[in-house]
Amino acid sequence: MGKGITKKSEDYSLWYNDIVKRADLAEHSPVRGCMIIKPYGYSIWEKMQQNLDKMFKDTGHTNAYFPLFVPKSYLSKEAAHVEGFAKECAIVTHYRLKSDEKGGVVVDPEAKLEEELIIRPTSETVIWSSYKNWIQSYRDLPILINQWANVVRWEMRTRLFLRTAEFLWQEGHTAHATEKEAVEETMQMLDVYAEFAEKYMAMPVIKGKKTESEKFPGAVDTYCIEALMQDGKALQSGTSHFLGQNFARAFDVKYADKEGKLELVWGTSWGVSTRLMGALIMAHSDDDGLVLPPNLAPIQVVIVPIFKDEEQLKSVSEIAHQLIATLKEKDISVKYDDRDTQKPGWKFAEYELKGVPVRIAIGPKDVENNTVEIARRDTKEKEIVPLEQAVEKIEGLLPEMQKNIYQKALDFREGLTQKVDDYEDFKRKLDSTGGFFLAHWDGTAETENKIKEETKATIRCIPIDQEKEEGKCMYSGKPSRGRVIFARAY
Amino acid sequence: MGKGITKKSEDYSLWYNDIVKRADLAEHSPVRGCMIIKPYGYSIWEKMQQNLDKMFKDTGHTNAYFPLFVPKSYLSKEAAHVEGFAKECAIVTHYRLKSDEKGGVVVDPEAKLEEELIIRPTSETVIWSSYKNWIQSYRDLPILINQWANVVRWEMRTRLFLRTAEFLWQEGHTAHATEKEAVEETMQMLDVYAEFAEKYMAMPVIKGKKTESEKFPGAVDTYCIEALMQDGKALQSGTSHFLGQNFARAFDVKYADKEGKLELVWGTSWGVSTRLMGALIMAHSDDDGLVLPPNLAPIQVVIVPIFKDEEQLKSVSEIAHQLIATLKEKDISVKYDDRDTQKPGWKFAEYELKGVPVRIAIGPKDVENNTVEIARRDTKEKEIVPLEQAVEKIEGLLPEMQKNIYQKALDFREGLTQKVDDYEDFKRKLDSTGGFFLAHWDGTAETENKIKEETKATIRCIPIDQEKEEGKCMYSGKPSRGRVIFARAY
Repeated sequence: MGKGITKKSEDYSLWYNDIVKRADLAEHSPVRGCMIIKPYGYSIWEKMQQNLDKMFKDTGHTNAYFPLFVPKSYLSKEAAHVEGFAKECAIVTHYRLKSDEKGGVVVDPEAKLEEELIIRPTSETVIWSSYKNWIQSYRDLPILINQWANVVRWEMRTRLFLRTAEFLWQEGHTAHATEKEAVEETMQMLDVYAEFAEKYMAMPVIKGKKTESEKFPGAVDTYCIEALMQDGKALQSGTSHFLGQNFARAFDVKYADKEGKLELVWGTSWGVSTRLMGALIMAHSDDDGLVLPPNLAPIQVVIVPIFKDEEQLKSVSEIAHQLIATLKEKDISVKYDDRDTQKPGWKFAEYELKGVPVRIAIGPKDVENNTVEIARRDTKEKEIVPLEQAVEKIEGLLPEMQKNIYQKALDFREGLTQKVDDYEDFKRKLDSTGGFFLAHWDGTAETENKIKEETKATIRCIPIDQEKEEGKCMYSGKPSRGRVIFARAY
Repeated sequence: MGKGITKKSEDYSLWYNDIVKRADLAEHSPVRGCMIIKPYGYSIWEKMQQNLDKMFKDTGHTNAYFPLFVPKSYLSKEAAHVEGFAKECAIVTHYRLKSDEKGGVVVDPEAKLEEELIIRPTSETVIWSSYKNWIQSYRDLPILINQWANVVRWEMRTRLFLRTAEFLWQEGHTAHATEKEAVEETMQMLDVYAEFAEKYMAMPVIKGKKTESEKFPGAVDTYCIEALMQDGKALQSGTSHFLGQNFARAFDVKYADKEGKLELVWGTSWGVSTRLMGALIMAHSDDDGLVLPPNLAPIQVVIVPIFKDEEQLKSVSEIAHQLIATLKEKDISVKYDDRDTQKPGWKFAEYELKGVPVRIAIGPKDVENNTVEIARRDTKEKEIVPLEQAVEKIEGLLPEMQKNIYQKALDFREGLTQKVDDYEDFKRKLDSTGGFFLAHWDGTAETENKIKEETKATIRCIPIDQEKEEGKCMYSGKPSRGRVIFARAY
């Protein structure tokens, strides 16, 4: 019984696609550029949503919902913004179909919109046009809103979860009276994202600032979290933008301060998307399939009975149901797979493929000896445990695995984070090992672009915790005061 | 201090709009036909979602996500379906903007799609085109999937929550091996909706079947729950469709049964939307604002301190914080509004407007006497209660209010449910009292249409629990075997 998964070492890209498909996470839709998130994949996304949503609410944010459509004229109000999104947007031009002579339907030319509507690629313009009505005085501030939504950015070359025309995300949009407060909000949400990545996704990230050429169209500063995938490529996993007064200016959003003086409002926006699913898969999985950190696993424990006949199943099931009851009491999610249409070996492979953290097998011998077999997905270790110790064992195992998966990813990243000073050395290592490269850069877009053209590596970020260090740009030799992070990226 | 709410008796429609706006539930967006669901309104929708989602999962369904776009050719595959939706859909024709000579942006004529994409008005076609790939044998059935999504049906005349071009909803789409199973699923989900309406929304509903002319385009049978609003008009609050093999036929979805014979798959779909927000508002609210059933109230208890100075606030706050801690332990959501920018009277009116079920006021006298004042939103009754009995009192009050709000709505509906046998009598009562009319109908679309043209009343449903009763159609005099429900409707 082959699992049909290409080995990671043979073809990383195929390996990724195989896991996404075989673990039933997502598939390409017949609708160009769009994906279908299948139930198992969606259940992981739901766990991400629940935990992020709680973190947003704990930091004072509330959810709301704004329209899918952005009038074309709105998009144009912020110059950098329209420049960034005009080339990849889906445009609604008509609002009715009519029958044609062949019995089919065609677009009704008489139902043409006066002004075209863009499917939101992001909602700054729609939201700031509302904030204009919501904000009169300093008493109306801050506004701390988040939205869970679908957005569309037209992409020709798509990859499941990583790049699709439509994707799901959350977008936070806040408005503040002062620059200081808006900057603090920007950094707070960056920290929330980093904490989520590390605590739930078990994925270490580097927090940093984007260069001018990589920042969000319309932002003053863009901050990001960057993670390293197992092929040595970086994946931008979340961004938090300090918008300055750009959108307030574009939509004329002013507030009266305590003295009654009118001031432009300060803004932020921040988002993570179903791209995190791609990050989660690529950060931890192996040649047997998905490896899920317990904190995001929809099924944390699966119980597989070993039996030859109804009677054996009955005695095994008795133990299983006791275990299930106790595990559920402890808020551990558990599935009992007692189908008789599949053999245990098939089930073992299936749940490995799906990344279920803990597998319990119970057979007639276990019934005799009052034991169960516990196997963990991350290290593949198996152990026979007395039944009465099973729950306690699992309670300890889940956080231990969460920690172990994180540590493994951290060790991997540290092993692939290298200081380089010589451009030739950089290019050679980029091709041989990949990873994060800490290098000096002269701060110009010209050098950044040249390096990108020549190597396909980009500056992922200027790390928040960058050390002051005098040096010379590895490309131009011009002076630099600290290292930035270069990598090839998704 | 005026609340700015039109009296219900003066202008029901304005009263509704005033509540939606003044209670900060939603507003019209500058984007034609679309609404903005504001944070407070969205938090009520979130409560609805959480409870419905749990009910769906408890009945074996899982969530997934399918694309926003429906290729035009898909829509056309089911004849009744395209007929039903062609006239009100948003159509994407292009995928890029370009700069024009005036410094603005225009649609790039070179980026025209080969096939136009429809923004989903509902997802049967996209989903059944996927089910074709997911279903080979009886082992792949049933498929029990739900999706939370936005949909677009182009509407020229919109009303907040009740009718907007874009709205939020859930749509269940299931596939089954047998007709019996699909019919059972259809009825099960109708029951889930009725239970949700009654248990959470405190809104009594009538379960029934739609007539041929009112059924969903593409369904064999459409079932619905119908509620009565305070102006005597009906509001369809949820629908569950038995699709027969219509979509399986359109998309060629077959399964091999145990003998290997290929059979068409049976389907259902069912949905409720943000329209439920409109129903909730109209079912219970009064001239002072929203009345929320405790089971859906984002804030169940608000505490308002009465104080003249910092010292008084401090002693009141001490009591308040004790109460808050105990209420939270009991999973009762509570807000403490100790702002000093607004007077208590303003706050009282504000939380009445927002429908918060229980208000606690604590002043210096209460501190002295060890008491609090508890006011309930539904009956406006107030009571001074010893502090040590406050939590117990509230624990009893919340379910009592839930029940009372339901009973009030039920009494109202029963008062406005009338048997009529004479058409003139029907028309007169329809104008004077409105409500549900149980009348004999000859079963023809012709009569149904005539009555609709002449009175604007429609057959809301053929009740599930319809009694067999020989009679004569109130319009045509032709024979009938039972009464159906007529009403004017939203």
